[in-house]
Amino acid sequence: MKILIFAGSLRVDSVNKKNAREAVRLTSELGAEAEFIDLRDYPMPPYDGDIEAQGIPEIVKKLSAKIAAVDALIISTPEYNASIPGTLKNVIDWLSRDKPVTMNDKHLLLLAASPGMFGGMRALWHSRQPFEQLGVHVYPEMLGLKDAYNAFDASGKLKDDKGLKTLIEKFIKHVGK
Amino acid sequence: MKILIFAGSLRVDSVNKKNAREAVRLTSELGAEAEFIDLRDYPMPPYDGDIEAQGIPEIVKKLSAKIAAVDALIISTPEYNASIPGTLKNVIDWLSRDKPVTMNDKHLLLLAASPGMFGGMRALWHSRQPFEQLGVHVYPEMLGLKDAYNAFDASGKLKDDKGLKTLIEKFIKHVGK
Amino acid sequence: MKILIFAGSLRVDSVNKKNAREAVRLTSELGAEAEFIDLRDYPMPPYDGDIEAQGIPEIVKKLSAKIAAVDALIISTPEYNASIPGTLKNVIDWLSRDKPVTMNDKHLLLLAASPGMFGGMRALWHSRQPFEQLGVHVYPEMLGLKDAYNAFDASGKLKDDKGLKTLIEKFIKHVGK
Amino acid sequence: MKILIFAGSLRVDSVNKKNAREAVRLTSELGAEAEFIDLRDYPMPPYDGDIEAQGIPEIVKKLSAKIAAVDALIISTPEYNASIPGTLKNVIDWLSRDKPVTMNDKHLLLLAASPGMFGGMRALWHSRQPFEQLGVHVYPEMLGLKDAYNAFDASGKLKDDKGLKTLIEKFIKHVGK
Repeated sequence: MKILIFAGSLRVDSVNKKNAREAVRLTSELGAEAEFIDLRDYPMPPYDGDIEAQGIPEIVKKLSAKIAAVDALIISTPEYNASIPGTLKNVIDWLSRDKPVTMNDKHLLLLAASPGMFGGMRALWHSRQPFEQLGVHVYPEMLGLKDAYNAFDASGKLKDDKGLKTLIEKFIKHVGK
Repeated sequence: MKILIFAGSLRVDSVNKKNAREAVRLTSELGAEAEFIDLRDYPMPPYDGDIEAQGIPEIVKKLSAKIAAVDALIISTPEYNASIPGTLKNVIDWLSRDKPVTMNDKHLLLLAASPGMFGGMRALWHSRQPFEQLGVHVYPEMLGLKDAYNAFDASGKLKDDKGLKTLIEKFIKHVGK
Repeated sequence: MKILIFAGSLRVDSVNKKNAREAVRLTSELGAEAEFIDLRDYPMPPYDGDIEAQGIPEIVKKLSAKIAAVDALIISTPEYNASIPGTLKNVIDWLSRDKPVTMNDKHLLLLAASPGMFGGMRALWHSRQPFEQLGVHVYPEMLGLKDAYNAFDASGKLKDDKGLKTLIEKFIKHVGK
Repeated sequence: MKILIFAGSLRVDSVNKKNAREAVRLTSELGAEAEFIDLRDYPMPPYDGDIEAQGIPEIVKKLSAKIAAVDALIISTPEYNASIPGTLKNVIDWLSRDKPVTMNDKHLLLLAASPGMFGGMRALWHSRQPFEQLGVHVYPEMLGLKDAYNAFDASGKLKDDKGLKTLIEKFIKHVGK
């Protein structure tokens, strides 16, 4: 089983990138093949129909192909203004223009990390809708990491990874059915 | 009363820009001062905390100041993947970083235009949440223009503008209270 | 494969009950075992913690047990006020109090029928959230039947059942994996 | 200014009723006329079109009339299964059948109280949609009381009422415009 894992943010020191890297480590430990990618390596302009008219950008096709090659996705998203980040939604919007849409019928586990006490709860729920509209099986359970600035040790490991490990284990079992 | 009006899309021939321009015409006819802007003139990269660390981009501050100068906003948004366009959400995300947030306590009327038969209904409801989180008074009633490719005449006027005119009239009356 | 099918409304002549009965017929034709139930036979008072303190009502346990015995659910819901009917949400609320929650890890296909032109689209999206919170795998694709008062013939059959048949076929295939 | 205040739950010892009573106290202290009602005194069966066909129940008309007589509402809602309680949604559904809908164009402040750490955040956001569909001006800011079983003293007063007082003060000022 192959799982592609990334964060919904661009910032180099993003807690969501740390969270995504921890998901990679745990997924590997649980016996699945995990690949981390950084959205910074897939730069996409804000969606514009006039750009699309000149052809789907190569970088969109490249990410689309990466998704086609896996069984499932794990995404850790920040929460901006009680919703999905525009940055992440923009990636979804571009991917939805490259037909056939490769994320259709894939499985997705949504995570979030947030410095606040809600753990990105509103971003998690708002993020489901565009993925589900594209035919993605978004796993019912989600996990929001609260107080994220204090959740990782100096080496970037989660001080407490039990909740995430248990959830990824359930997710892998579900995808493998 | 001053109202700033724009579309949530970048494409030059966007039906939402046509819809926004019609909102400008009707707002003016109803006695309020309306200004149209094109998000193409406010280009913003996908939000990235590392860019922000170098200072809020001038173009963000410029849009923020334009919003500070009005009483209300009218936005006509496309629907991408059953939700708000990443392009529009990205503008909201950037504006939310320029403190104090100028859209706080402003009134907003949300419109949508879509070639489909739902008139952007899912985008309208999903778009409310980030604005409301930022303290915007989003008018309860919204209007989704369906079958939008056939809704305008050759001069760009709505073939039937009664619904939009009635709604803007109610909105102006509410804002003026 | 066993599938339990019901409507989210109580009215005897409900178009959602007709839609649910058509889902039963199509599910059977597609080779799965389908059972229709009528929520009228599972009367539950509005949830009240003081009633629960006297014990979970027997009728709740009865419905809970029926759900435990199947692999999947198909529910056709009306749309009330741009959201899930209180009547249906109340059934979910009661079921969630009978531990363990039997709908956890089950599959669910959501349908809607509405006399309007949106086909209950807002009820469909709003209904996903409580089910997903309870661990239900809500199928990404949903189907809203619009103009529902004119969609059935005198014998109660859908005048056009192709869309529903195709969707149920995909759903059964997914559940069977 | 008259404000009607109630909780979205029925249980006698509900923390949301305590929260609503505190809202009554603070509203009065802030100079507006506040009335508390208990939904237990407005018992409504789960909505059923066949009951409605015999006439809107008198108890629905009574609540509808109470709402007609005020300028604004404050509702404190529990969160059931990451959404609005069926009990509260059912009251909205019944009220929406009594024409004209008296809550249309009224102001509403949404509160929540929850024993958990999210303070009913998901119920708050999900509850906006049916009210807004009915033309209610739902105040953008909301307040979720977390850890609610430990938030009140023996006399039923909030141990810390500053946040709620500040919010109600802002709400009253907004309604009074």
